[in-house]
Amino acid sequence: MKKYSLNPLTGKKIKIPSALDDRSNIDVFLEKNSEKKIIVVQGLGFVGAVMSIVCANSNNNNYAVIGIDLPNSNNYWKIDSINSGIFPVISSDKKIEKFFNKSKKQKNFYATYDSYAYSKADYIIVDINLDVEKKSDFIGNVLDFDVDISPFEMAIKSIGHKCKENVTILIETTIPPGTCEKVVKPTLDSCLSKRGLSNKKYFLGHSYERVMPGPDYVDSIKNFYRVFSGIDKKSEVKIEKFLKTIISTKKYPLTKLKNTNSTEIAKVLENSYRAMNIAFAVEWSRFAEEAGCNLYEIVDAIRMRPTHSNLMYPGIGVGGYCLTKDPLLASWSRKFFFKSKSLYQSENGVRINDLMPNYAYNFLVNSFYPNNIKNKNIIFFGVSYRSDISDTRYTPVERFYKFCKKAGSNIFLHDPYTKYWEELSVNVHSEDYSVFLKNDIDIVIITTSHSQYNQNEFTSLLLKKRKLFILDTVGVLNEEQIKKLSKPHKLKVLGRGDL
Amino acid sequence: MKKYSLNPLTGKKIKIPSALDDRSNIDVFLEKNSEKKIIVVQGLGFVGAVMSIVCANSNNNNYAVIGIDLPNSNNYWKIDSINSGIFPVISSDKKIEKFFNKSKKQKNFYATYDSYAYSKADYIIVDINLDVEKKSDFIGNVLDFDVDISPFEMAIKSIGHKCKENVTILIETTIPPGTCEKVVKPTLDSCLSKRGLSNKKYFLGHSYERVMPGPDYVDSIKNFYRVFSGIDKKSEVKIEKFLKTIISTKKYPLTKLKNTNSTEIAKVLENSYRAMNIAFAVEWSRFAEEAGCNLYEIVDAIRMRPTHSNLMYPGIGVGGYCLTKDPLLASWSRKFFFKSKSLYQSENGVRINDLMPNYAYNFLVNSFYPNNIKNKNIIFFGVSYRSDISDTRYTPVERFYKFCKKAGSNIFLHDPYTKYWEELSVNVHSEDYSVFLKNDIDIVIITTSHSQYNQNEFTSLLLKKRKLFILDTVGVLNEEQIKKLSKPHKLKVLGRGDL
Repeated sequence: MKKYSLNPLTGKKIKIPSALDDRSNIDVFLEKNSEKKIIVVQGLGFVGAVMSIVCANSNNNNYAVIGIDLPNSNNYWKIDSINSGIFPVISSDKKIEKFFNKSKKQKNFYATYDSYAYSKADYIIVDINLDVEKKSDFIGNVLDFDVDISPFEMAIKSIGHKCKENVTILIETTIPPGTCEKVVKPTLDSCLSKRGLSNKKYFLGHSYERVMPGPDYVDSIKNFYRVFSGIDKKSEVKIEKFLKTIISTKKYPLTKLKNTNSTEIAKVLENSYRAMNIAFAVEWSRFAEEAGCNLYEIVDAIRMRPTHSNLMYPGIGVGGYCLTKDPLLASWSRKFFFKSKSLYQSENGVRINDLMPNYAYNFLVNSFYPNNIKNKNIIFFGVSYRSDISDTRYTPVERFYKFCKKAGSNIFLHDPYTKYWEELSVNVHSEDYSVFLKNDIDIVIITTSHSQYNQNEFTSLLLKKRKLFILDTVGVLNEEQIKKLSKPHKLKVLGRGDL
Repeated sequence: MKKYSLNPLTGKKIKIPSALDDRSNIDVFLEKNSEKKIIVVQGLGFVGAVMSIVCANSNNNNYAVIGIDLPNSNNYWKIDSINSGIFPVISSDKKIEKFFNKSKKQKNFYATYDSYAYSKADYIIVDINLDVEKKSDFIGNVLDFDVDISPFEMAIKSIGHKCKENVTILIETTIPPGTCEKVVKPTLDSCLSKRGLSNKKYFLGHSYERVMPGPDYVDSIKNFYRVFSGIDKKSEVKIEKFLKTIISTKKYPLTKLKNTNSTEIAKVLENSYRAMNIAFAVEWSRFAEEAGCNLYEIVDAIRMRPTHSNLMYPGIGVGGYCLTKDPLLASWSRKFFFKSKSLYQSENGVRINDLMPNYAYNFLVNSFYPNNIKNKNIIFFGVSYRSDISDTRYTPVERFYKFCKKAGSNIFLHDPYTKYWEELSVNVHSEDYSVFLKNDIDIVIITTSHSQYNQNEFTSLLLKKRKLFILDTVGVLNEEQIKKLSKPHKLKVLGRGDL
C-alpha cells in the first residue's frame, strides 16, 4: 500500500492517513447540515466530482453532499483537494468554480474515504469506473478483452454493508446491460438480509450520465436530457422524484424506460453509435486522399442535411474513457449475461478506431522525405484525446508517440491543457511555445485539435522556422493557415488528397 | 424489341411507334417556346420526371423542358403518359399535380424518345439510372457484385453525338466517384472532336439530387440543400448560375466542392452512412429482444440527444434504389477507378441489411405455433419498401415473400399504394380490406409501416378475427393497438423483447 497520493494539479505528494477513520469529521459535517437530506456520491472522478457540486447546489441547497473515494495513491489526493478548497478537476467551464465556491460557502460538500458515510445517506449515487481490460498487441489490434465486474461488485457491497433502510441508490456508472438485475440487486439483497434487513427496504434505479468535460461541463449534467429506470415500480417513482430535484427537467424532460436493462443498453448503444460513426469515416478518409478530395469539405457539405449532421470527421484516432470501451462492455454483456453472440459490428468499430494511429504513423513515414524519422526532432502539438480538454485517458496520441519513439525520434510535447502526461509519466510543455522555439525541429505533428492551433499566433510561430515537415492529423488548420504554411514548409493533412 | 409498353398506372398497353422520328413534334414544341431557354432532361424516372416539372416552373417560366427516355417497353409509356396529360408518378405530394398542370397550361413541357432534342438543348440534365449488378444467393448473401458502366456511357454518347456548342451538361445521377473525370468527359471530348468541335465548347458539372418521393417530393428538389462541382472553373460558374435559377438557394445555399470526384463521393458517402446506420441497429435489435427490452423505446430515448437524432429503428430490411446499392457503387469505384481497396465497412452494411428479411422470416417460423407455416394463409400488410409510398424496387418484403412461398404458405397481399407488384408480377389488393375479411387468415405480417396500419380502423379490422398470429416487422403498431390486439391474438414485434 502506497503511503502517498500525488496531486497532479499541484504536484504535491499527499500523505494518506494511516488510521482510516473519518467518523468524527463526518459527524461534524452532518451536525452542520442536520436539516438537510444527505447525498453520498461514490467516486470522485470526472463524473462524481462534478455531480457532487451540482447536487450541493440543487433543491434550494437542501442537500448536503459527501463525496467518497478510496484512500489509495490514485484517489486520495482528490479527497484532500476538495477538503482543502481546491476542486480536483480543471475545466474551461466557469460554472465549475462557481458551483464549488458556493458549496464551500454553504458548507454542504465534504469528501471522505470512510464508508461510514453510507450509513447516513438518504441518497447514494454510484459514479465509479467499470473498466474493460483490453488485450491489444503493440500495433493496436485488440486480441481479446474481458470485464472484471468484481471491483464494481465490491463497491456495491460497501454500500450494502452500511446503508440505512429506505435509502435510494442511483447507479450512473456505464455498466454492462444486465448489471443492475444480475449484480447490483442480488448483492444488495444478500448484504441486507445478512444484516437482518428486508430487501424490500431500498430503492434502486439506473440513470446514466452524459457528462461532457469542456465548456459545458455542468450543463451536461444539469441542463440535458436524461433517461432513467427503476428496478421496480416504487424505485422508478423515487428515482424520478429525485432526478427532478437535480436536473432542469422542465426544459429537458426525463425519459422513463421500462426496466434497468433498457437504460443500460441505451447508454452503451449511444456510445457505440458514436464510435461506429467515427469508424465509418475512416475508410472514406482514405478514399478521399486517393481521389484528390478534401474529406472535411465533403463532410461539411453532407452535414447541411439535418439527417446527416452528426457525420464525423476523420482524425488520428479515438480516445477517452467511453468510446474506446463501451461497445465492448455491451458485447461482453450480451455474451456473458445473455449467453448470446457478440455485438460484432460494435466491437469492430472499436477495432477500426484503435488502429487509426497506425495509419497516421504510416502516413507520416511515407510522406516525410527522407522517410527515415530516426533521430529526427518531432514536436507533438496536443496530447489529450479531444480538443480543449486536459483528459489524456486512452488518447490515440499515445500509440502514435510510442511508434515514433520506437523509430528513434526525439519527441517534444506541447499541450496548453496538460502539464503532465500521467499514463506515460512524462512532462508536457504547456506554458508557451518556447519548447518549439528553443529546439531544432524537423517535424511538426498536430495531434489534438486544440483551438489555439487554429490561430494566427500559431501560424506565425511555425513560420519562424524554415523547412519543416508538418502533418496535421486532426484537420485543425484552416485554409488560410494551410496556404501560408505550405510555402516554406511541406504540409500534409490526413483525409485531404487535395494538398 | 417489344412493341408495347405497359402503363402500370392505367393498366393500358401503349404501342411503341415503329418509325422512331419525333422531329416534327419537337420542332412544333420549340416553335411555341421560341423565346425560352431549352432544358433537356435525360431519364423520366422518379427523379427526371419531377425534375422536369420543377424546371418547367422555374426561372419565371422562361425554360421549356423536353423530357427524354428510351422507346422501350419499360419506359415508352412514360413519354406517352406525359404527352397525354397524365403524370407518370403517383405521389402524395399535391405540388406534383400543381406543377404538372401549370406546365401543361404553359405548354412548356414535352416528352420524347428522339435524341434530336439534344441538338436543341441549352442545358442537359442527366437523370438516368446507373445500376449495380448484385449476385446474391437465395438467402440473400451478396456473393459478388459488378457495375456495368456502359449503358451510362452510351447515354452520354447520345448527348455527345448531338449536343450543340456551349451546352451546359449537369449530371445528377448517382455515379461511381471518378465517373465525370474518367468516363463522362473523355466520352464527350471524343464525340465532339469526331464532329470537328472543340472540347472547350461545353460545360460539365455534377450536382446530385436528394429526391425523397413522398409528401415533400417537389420540395426535396426545389427547397433543399445542394452540393455541386464543375469539371473546370468555367463549368463550375455555369452550373452554379443554372442551379440558382431552379433551387431556392437563398434559403438553402449551395455548397461548392473542389472537383467532381468530391461531389460524387459526397453522394455515395451520405447514402452509405444511412445504410450503415440501419445496419448498426440490427444487432442491437436482437440484443433488445434477448434482454426483454423495447428497442423502439430505447432509440426514442437516445434520439432526444441532438447528436443522436438520426439513430435508426430496426425493421424487416432495407429497400429502394439507393441504399441497397450506393455503398457498392462507391466500393467498386475505389477498386476499379482508383486501384485501391474495397470500402469494407460500407459494403458490409449492405450485406447486413440484405439479410434482415431472413431474420424476420426465422423469427416468424420460430414464434408461430405450430412452427410449420406450410399451407397457412398469410396476409402481408405492405409491399413497398418504405411507409406511404408506392415504390417496390428492391423492397425487403420480396425476399420475405419468397421464403414464405417456398415454405408452402398461401400469401395474400395488401398495400394501399400499390395495385401491382411489378418485380414479382403479382396483383396487390389496395382498395380496401376485403381481402382480409373474405379469407381465412392464420398469420398477419405487417411488412411496411404505412400510416394507415397505425389507425383504429386497422385495429378494429384485426379484431374481427380470432386467434391470429400477428408479427409486426416494422414497429408500426402503437402501444394501444398492441394492448388491444394481444388479448385475442398472439402478437410479436421485431426488436421488442418486452412483449
